[in-house]
This record gives sequence, structure tokens and C-alpha cells, in this order.
Amino acid sequence: MPAPEIERLVGLFARLPTLGPRSARRAVLSLLADPKAHIQPMIDAMQAVVDHVQVCPICGNFDTQVPCSVCADSKRDKKQICLVRDIADLWALERGNIFHGVYHVLGGVLSAIDGVGPDDLNLDALVGRIQKGDVEEVILALPATVDGQTTAHYVADRLSKYPVQITTLARGVPVGGELDYLDDGTLQMALKSRRNL
Amino acid sequence: MPAPEIERLVGLFARLPTLGPRSARRAVLSLLADPKAHIQPMIDAMQAVVDHVQVCPICGNFDTQVPCSVCADSKRDKKQICLVRDIADLWALERGNIFHGVYHVLGGVLSAIDGVGPDDLNLDALVGRIQKGDVEEVILALPATVDGQTTAHYVADRLSKYPVQITTLARGVPVGGELDYLDDGTLQMALKSRRNL
Repeated sequence: MPAPEIERLVGLFARLPTLGPRSARRAVLSLLADPKAHIQPMIDAMQAVVDHVQVCPICGNFDTQVPCSVCADSKRDKKQICLVRDIADLWALERGNIFHGVYHVLGGVLSAIDGVGPDDLNLDALVGRIQKGDVEEVILALPATVDGQTTAHYVADRLSKYPVQITTLARGVPVGGELDYLDDGTLQMALKSRRNL
Repeated sequence: MPAPEIERLVGLFARLPTLGPRSARRAVLSLLADPKAHIQPMIDAMQAVVDHVQVCPICGNFDTQVPCSVCADSKRDKKQICLVRDIADLWALERGNIFHGVYHVLGGVLSAIDGVGPDDLNLDALVGRIQKGDVEEVILALPATVDGQTTAHYVADRLSKYPVQITTLARGVPVGGELDYLDDGTLQMALKSRRNL
């Protein structure tokens, strides 16, 4: 039995997503192999995050500045708002460096199973941004799952009374995708949305 | 792009075993969801580990006491030493609560590919413990891999001049194992070591 101090750290690691008890033990043992070199930098990095990172009051992104670097960037097109489920999805789009508008983090998707209702989503803030009048387009970049698409329809319905264009990400064959490995739904959407070459 | 403080923490998490860049991002985002509730306890737990956990000078286990709770336990049979590759394996045996002797952590196994030679192993300390004269049996609980078994033979050879019994874990069908899914080597060992019912 490891010492209680180690057990507690393993328990905290095991609560993180993608980690279980075994990988948490391996992670903690790898840290313990050289505590000064491995644990102290992690403590410092966590303390820096606790001290400096805040939620952007406009879009819901995490950043050390308020508003966040995306919202504060004058080169970004504030007329385009890309609605994402969470910050991981925001980072995914930012990594690609393909979008030059601003974001809005919804904080989840509607889910009957997980008990997530409209009031649990960061939707009023989005409506508030639209009501200010400068927004021309809201791009729904929500997951292509049942819950994601239910949420997309709910959001589109909620925003229908405002003079904004609502768009959504295209469905189709992913780049590098083999037709043989794709599900029927994707193939059907790709065929239906075919375009002239 | 996340803030540099977040990037640094993601980078540190991504270095842990079983975690990659994507799972490190997910782990950090889950911590950021509520920094006070999630990050601060982790900082405290890590600080406690850095401040209190030490390597046992006898067996190489991690513990908050010196010698470790296993070596210090008067109920443990000091005549039996179980040689394990690393502390994860020691914890696995302790979880089972099946062994009542003491341990010795080798700190790895011989590996030509990873450049691990006899001098990289915690073997001199084991010889030292045996030379003191109280040890009757060394149980080689090393992995049943090529490197593990090479190491077991090397250790057995090194200890052959001392009056200790060298034993190794049994090979055979694991509990709950389907014969159809077992490799030929295991089946062969299980057949060769068959016993009267």
C-alpha cells in the first residue's frame, strides 16, 4: 500500500478524463522518479494557471487577459461568431488557423441522458451579443452527434427572430477518408451535398 | 491558441506516461473547469508528496517513513525478499495482500535496446542485504518478457555464490484464462509444469 500522500495524488489523477487508476499510478510514479525535476515545475505551472487564467466574459474562452486574446484582437471579424461546444473545440479550430471571426463557448450540448437543459448552456450571453446588433453570421460548429444536432436546431430556433444568418459546418467525406470505412449517414450526406468540380 | 500558462501545463501533462497531447489538453481543461476545486487540491497533494515522500534506503520503495512501512513492519518475514522491477509491480503485489515477506526494487530490467546494463540496476544493495546473512529466499518476480527473464537469469547467476534459495513466479494459465486465447509459450509452460490434482 502506497503512503496516504501518494494515494491521494493518485486518486486526484484518476479523476481526470482519459485516466484510470492504473494510468494514474503510472503517472504519479513517473513524477516520483525525480520529484524536484518533475513535480515542482508542475506545481509552479498549476499555481500560474490558478493565479492568472480567467474566463473571458464575452465568449467563455480561458485566457490570462480579459477579454481573451481572440475577442481583444482587432484583426478578428466580430461580425462572425462561431458557436462551439467547449474550449477544446475552440482550440481545435484555432490550431487550424482557419477561422478569423470570434467564438462563443456554449459550455455543453443539450442531453436528456446527462440532464443538460437549455438553462445549463451559455446561450443568453450569445443572444445578448446578437442583440447588440453587429453580428451578421452565427456558425454552428457543434458536434455531428444526435445531441449536438439537437442543440444546433434548438439554437437556430432561438436565434430565428434576429436578423443574423445561421450556418453550420458542412457534412461530407473527411479529408483522407476511405469510402469503405465511412458510415452510411456520412456517405448519404456527402452524396446529397455533392458539388460541381 | 491557449495562453502560455495553459500551454505549459498541457506540455507537462503530455509528458506523463499514457497521456498524449490530446488527453493532456482534456485533463487540463477539466482542471480549469473549476480551478479552486480541482487544481488547488492537486497542488497541495503534490507539495505533500515532494515534502514527505522519500526512497526507502533498504528496498527502494517510496514512502513517507524511512525505512518504508513494509521494511519497518515487524510482522513481515525478512528472510524472504521478493525482487520486483519497479514500484508499480511492488504495489500490484501489495494490493493482492498475498505476500508477507519484504521487497527489493530493481529499478528496471536489462535491455540492450534501451541501453540498460547491470550497473543501472539496484543490484549491489540486494547483494549487500544477502551478505548480511538473514535472507533465506529471493523470489524473482520479474516480468515474463524476454528482458525480464534475461534479467532473472543474470540475477540468479550473480546470487549463485550465496547460500540463498532463488525461486521465480510460476508460469501457467492465468486465472479466468481461456486456453484458446493463450499463446503457445504459455500453454507449453502450463503443460510442462502440470501438477497432480
